[in-house]
Amino acid sequence: MKLSEIVPVKFSGDRLLILDQTKLPGEKKYLEMQSKEDVFIAIKKMKVRGAPAIGVAAGYGLYVSVRDYEGRDLNEFRQYVQSTADYLVKARPTAVNLSWALNRMMDKLNAYDGSVSGAKRMLFEEADAIRIEDENACRKMGEYGLSLLEPGDGILTHCNAGTLATAMYGTSLSPLYLGEEKGYHFKVFADETRPALQGARLTAWELSKAGIDVTLICDNMASIVMKNGWIDAVVVGCDRMAANGDGANKIGTSGVAILAKEYGIPFYMFVPTSTIDFDTPTGDDIQIELRDGKEISTMWYKEPMAPEGISVYNPSFDVTPAKYITAVVTERGIVYPPYEENLRKIME
Amino acid sequence: MKLSEIVPVKFSGDRLLILDQTKLPGEKKYLEMQSKEDVFIAIKKMKVRGAPAIGVAAGYGLYVSVRDYEGRDLNEFRQYVQSTADYLVKARPTAVNLSWALNRMMDKLNAYDGSVSGAKRMLFEEADAIRIEDENACRKMGEYGLSLLEPGDGILTHCNAGTLATAMYGTSLSPLYLGEEKGYHFKVFADETRPALQGARLTAWELSKAGIDVTLICDNMASIVMKNGWIDAVVVGCDRMAANGDGANKIGTSGVAILAKEYGIPFYMFVPTSTIDFDTPTGDDIQIELRDGKEISTMWYKEPMAPEGISVYNPSFDVTPAKYITAVVTERGIVYPPYEENLRKIME
Repeated sequence: MKLSEIVPVKFSGDRLLILDQTKLPGEKKYLEMQSKEDVFIAIKKMKVRGAPAIGVAAGYGLYVSVRDYEGRDLNEFRQYVQSTADYLVKARPTAVNLSWALNRMMDKLNAYDGSVSGAKRMLFEEADAIRIEDENACRKMGEYGLSLLEPGDGILTHCNAGTLATAMYGTSLSPLYLGEEKGYHFKVFADETRPALQGARLTAWELSKAGIDVTLICDNMASIVMKNGWIDAVVVGCDRMAANGDGANKIGTSGVAILAKEYGIPFYMFVPTSTIDFDTPTGDDIQIELRDGKEISTMWYKEPMAPEGISVYNPSFDVTPAKYITAVVTERGIVYPPYEENLRKIME
Repeated sequence: MKLSEIVPVKFSGDRLLILDQTKLPGEKKYLEMQSKEDVFIAIKKMKVRGAPAIGVAAGYGLYVSVRDYEGRDLNEFRQYVQSTADYLVKARPTAVNLSWALNRMMDKLNAYDGSVSGAKRMLFEEADAIRIEDENACRKMGEYGLSLLEPGDGILTHCNAGTLATAMYGTSLSPLYLGEEKGYHFKVFADETRPALQGARLTAWELSKAGIDVTLICDNMASIVMKNGWIDAVVVGCDRMAANGDGANKIGTSGVAILAKEYGIPFYMFVPTSTIDFDTPTGDDIQIELRDGKEISTMWYKEPMAPEGISVYNPSFDVTPAKYITAVVTERGIVYPPYEENLRKIME
């Protein structure tokens, strides 16, 4: 199956379609976004998820939310678009790409001088550019990432930073797709990634669809597969990287990083430069989204799997300190410590 | 609620009753064991689980399986009981208590000289003794364990080594019950413990029933709760400890131990001396049970949460190397490294 058949966000004719990832792997269904509320809910409810894909959805989503605006005054249109962006940005707090994409759209609009209809066309083109740039960036990250791996390597993944999390290819899964084309035959272990099971439902699904050898494990089995000698590298994505190289990613990533260090296994974080937030000095400054405890106690289950009324702590992300990250793979190249200095260098 | 109301194995009148833990927390239901097949299935299907409770179930289970034997020849009875024990011991491979209890029953029987009916009575008394000794051992482990903790401590648990895993009190949860009686007010975090969810279904249930402050987390959140400064000690049980102090316990335990080391948090393993296997030199010699992958991909769920036919690796235990264990708490006292030497000393 081609990766293009499972992209998470696509603009087809004049319709914005989002693959409902909450229904995978049982059902592959695209939802049409017709209003800002549709877009907000799709992001909030994680129908589309993964920092880069959220950015792509936000770009097109902003366009779709404002294209039916009927006024002709550009300033009023700008205010209207800004208020829509202010609404959409609240859908999720941790991934920087949401605000990054919306700000980029607004910057373009604020710099634009012309008709409202021209501004709308420009917004669409900017959203399209975000998607195309992300696809290219993912491909580049795949090439750089592949240079760190050997044919036959055992690879551990956490969460989903694949095609389903980006415009296409993914960030941390991109080298696996490029490697498969070259006959590298990786042996991938996918953490199921509780509570939302992105590893079981999404990573295992998209890798197996592409014919890649993938074995599903529970999050708490990362230690034993490393102990067994089955893992040569860990690859993960990133939702926001602070200026010092601390990286927020799906809950559990920091634990995997600590295990990798203990077992002497390289830990690679795949970070499109759009995900690097130089305004955030360290990981301690990153806001961690807390989600409903029912995602742990009852979601997915035939019956509740925890006592009624039990306290639940459900952070959606954690921060992996820079010291555990062997290298940061960006679309501009591979960055090694000291990150504080070298992340800025690569942006020059 | 009294702990005695939720013991996993009880002999009531002439009936052997086993609490079906696969139905918790939704339903509290005792099953009557009427044959060796009932006992075998109860252990294999984890209706009763936890190394000490398996030992208690095996003792009574062996008695119930042979009490209707009609012959009068003691030697033939011994062979009959041995063949029954040989059958029961195959129910699960990792917990040493299963074979330990069955061997203890057989040793008693082989040393006995008298009538078959007397031998049966003796087997019942031995099973009863195993239960009572375990309850006393758990209480002692609780007292020793409590000496390692401070009022108000944050405690992380993995799996269930509580009342439901023993005759009563539990091993690693025993100090929490004794502490609660003394007004210690621990703040407990319970790893849910995929795939069988013993933490969510059992530990959270029994602690909250006893009025202890417990918060449920996913296994991959152990790192962030440690990072948050919420954990002062980790307490876990043990299914088999090798002579060098390597301890097999529920899958994921080794990862929690590595995290605890990295965050500078003490990691205590609670090990009744019946669980120490001096015939097993190191953790590498412990057989790790592999279970059906469906426990990960489909069990509990409304619909499958992984692609059909996906490869799954489902080890039920892992081995925590002795170097990560701050202290081993037994019913005879607290053992510190070097374990090779000090575990033997405590047995003298």
